[in-house]
Parts: sequence; C-alpha cells; structure tokens
Amino acid sequence: MTDTASRPGPGRPPSMTDPVGSILGAAAGLFAGKGYEGASLQDVARAVGMTKAGIYHYFGSKQDLYDAIVLSVLSDMLENAQAAVAQADGHDTRLRAFMVSHGRYLQENHDKYRASFIGRAGGDTTGYTENQIDARRNYTRFLEQIIRDGCADGAFETDDVPTTARGILGMLNWMARWYQPTGPKNAAEIADGYATLILAGLAPR
Amino acid sequence: MTDTASRPGPGRPPSMTDPVGSILGAAAGLFAGKGYEGASLQDVARAVGMTKAGIYHYFGSKQDLYDAIVLSVLSDMLENAQAAVAQADGHDTRLRAFMVSHGRYLQENHDKYRASFIGRAGGDTTGYTENQIDARRNYTRFLEQIIRDGCADGAFETDDVPTTARGILGMLNWMARWYQPTGPKNAAEIADGYATLILAGLAPR
Repeated sequence: MTDTASRPGPGRPPSMTDPVGSILGAAAGLFAGKGYEGASLQDVARAVGMTKAGIYHYFGSKQDLYDAIVLSVLSDMLENAQAAVAQADGHDTRLRAFMVSHGRYLQENHDKYRASFIGRAGGDTTGYTENQIDARRNYTRFLEQIIRDGCADGAFETDDVPTTARGILGMLNWMARWYQPTGPKNAAEIADGYATLILAGLAPR
Repeated sequence: MTDTASRPGPGRPPSMTDPVGSILGAAAGLFAGKGYEGASLQDVARAVGMTKAGIYHYFGSKQDLYDAIVLSVLSDMLENAQAAVAQADGHDTRLRAFMVSHGRYLQENHDKYRASFIGRAGGDTTGYTENQIDARRNYTRFLEQIIRDGCADGAFETDDVPTTARGILGMLNWMARWYQPTGPKNAAEIADGYATLILAGLAPR
C-alpha cells in the first residue's frame, strides 16, 4: 500500500474504490488491537494510505469513525439474527439460531466485532452515542423476546428473562477477549455448544 | 481531600496512613470509569491529594500501578473462591460456590473489578504482564478442575471443559459492563441465578 501521508491533494489514491469500507476495515483492526484510545486517526490514515485530511473527508472525528463501526456491527448482527431466527422452527431452535448467528458474525468479522465489544475501555458511557445505546438495546430485546416467547409456551423456564439474556450475551461477547480463529473450534461451533448448555439450563424442571 | 499537587516535599499529606491502598483505590476508580489510556497518573495523584512524584515513590509507572490492581484482584478472587469451594460439599455446591464467590467479589470491589476486566481496551496482549497471564490462568484452571471433577464423578456432562469454563467466566466477567449496585439484585444473587442455569445445563442427560 502506498504511503500518501505526505502527498497533498484529495488525500487518497485514485485506485481506492471503496474508501469508506477501507477506512472502516483498517480502523476496526487498529481499535481491536490497540483500543480506541491507543489508535489515532493518523494510524488509520497510514494503514489505508490516505492523508489524515482524507479521513476527515469521510468521518468528522475518531468518535464518528468508531460509532460507524459499532453501529454497522450491531445493525448487521440484528439483521443476521432476525433472518436466522425467522427460518427456525420451535423455541429451542430459535434460541440456538440466535446464538449461532452471533458466533458466526464474530467468526466472519473478527476485527469489527472485537473493536465493538472490547475496543473501548471503562464504564464511562459518555462515549456511547444515543444511536449505539438504541442499537444495543434492540439486539438485547430481540433475544429477550425469544426467551419470553419460549417461557410463555412452557418451553423455557426462568424467573428473570433480562438477566438470563445478559448472561447469554456475556458468554458470547466475552469471546471477543479470547477467541482465536486458529483454535480447534470456530466461533459458530463454540456458540452452538453454548446453546446446548443454555437450552438444557432453560428446560422446564 | 486536600489538593497537594502544588506542594513541595514528600508528596503526600502526613495524615495518609495507607498511601498504597489509597492510590490503588483511586486508580481503580479512574481506570474503571475512563479506562487505562484515559486516566493519567496526574489524575490519580489529584484524586488522592498527592504529587505525581509521590505516586512514583510507590509505583514506577502507570503500567505498574495497573498491574498491582489486576494482580490483587485475581489473587483475592482465587483465594476467596478456594475458601468458598473448600467449604462446599458435592460438585453442584462447589461450582455454585465458585460462581457466587466471583459475584460477591464484584459486589464488594466494584471499581477494582471493573478496572481489571474492562479497564483496558483491545486485544493486544502486550499490555498483560507474565504475572497477570499466570494469575488469570490459575483462576481459570481452578474452575476447570471443579468442572472436570464433576464430570469424572458423573455429576456433570460436557464434552469441552475449557470452553465451558470460558463461557461461565464470560457470563460473570461481562457483568463488569452492565452490573449496577443500585439494581434489583446484587451481584452475588445474579451469579447464584447463573449457577442455577449452568448447573441445569451441565446435568447428565
């Protein structure tokens, strides 16, 4: 990749057909590895062979760029999960479809997933935009509804749907910390194993 | 608390009886809220009413200070879990004791816990010292052994102990992101609910 950091002009090589996609991909890799604070827009510019001014042409700030990654992850994950669950028959199959879809997203979008789930440190939620909070809530609520529907039909038993949903998401999200694509199981297989554990745990007693 | 940032001399108020404990507590609160990168040693010094030079008297760097927090969290958590499990009778009770002990630690050490589990962003493990890696491994292995013992006796059924252990720790560790001490259940109660779910999930089929 050409280093254009010192070149004047529009700030990107004329050969770049999808500059936004390239910027998002490079930024995701940097945020995933070094964290939001540890990665600069200059690092991103260098990684895609653009000037920093070129990045500003598409994103107003590092926060905007990070938001775009998180929102695209959450909206893609929700869309994937909805499609997978719509095709599933029965409560067990629906919950499994949700969890496997989550794992598959990690598997196929390792950097973006890690950037979203472990790219930002600390519990200071001032870094979360309204849009991000809404998107996280929508994803969580979709899972809660799957569990609630199963409870209503007597297929699942739990006295605390929101906490159960957070536990399931915790199992899956924490994979951002430890999952290695080179390991013996891929992320969808791991999520499938967790679904077996959770489904047995939710079976009426 | 007196602001001594501009005062010369030894760098700490003569009234401070446990400067190391005060520094660790203040730093944990800052790392938990703003993240490792977002919090400076100057912030820590200001919070405890010491000079930055005063902090350096006890910790050589921000990394050293963060390490001390993480190592104390992991070593206290292991010690607590070992004590709780030693008093428990039967595999189910042992696994539940481990999980509730984990939740209780979060409940009683909210800042230190969050600093350790979500205070540092990104997957770049160069920020983890050997000691930290060892301590995390010891804690994970202790949980794996509880599960493995249960499987050997026919009390639990799983074909992948390490992945199961990571899933359980994921449920618990992810609470660093969402647990609010003001919520309807305390962290030990939440962990107890997760133990019920996991124990039903691990029951032989």
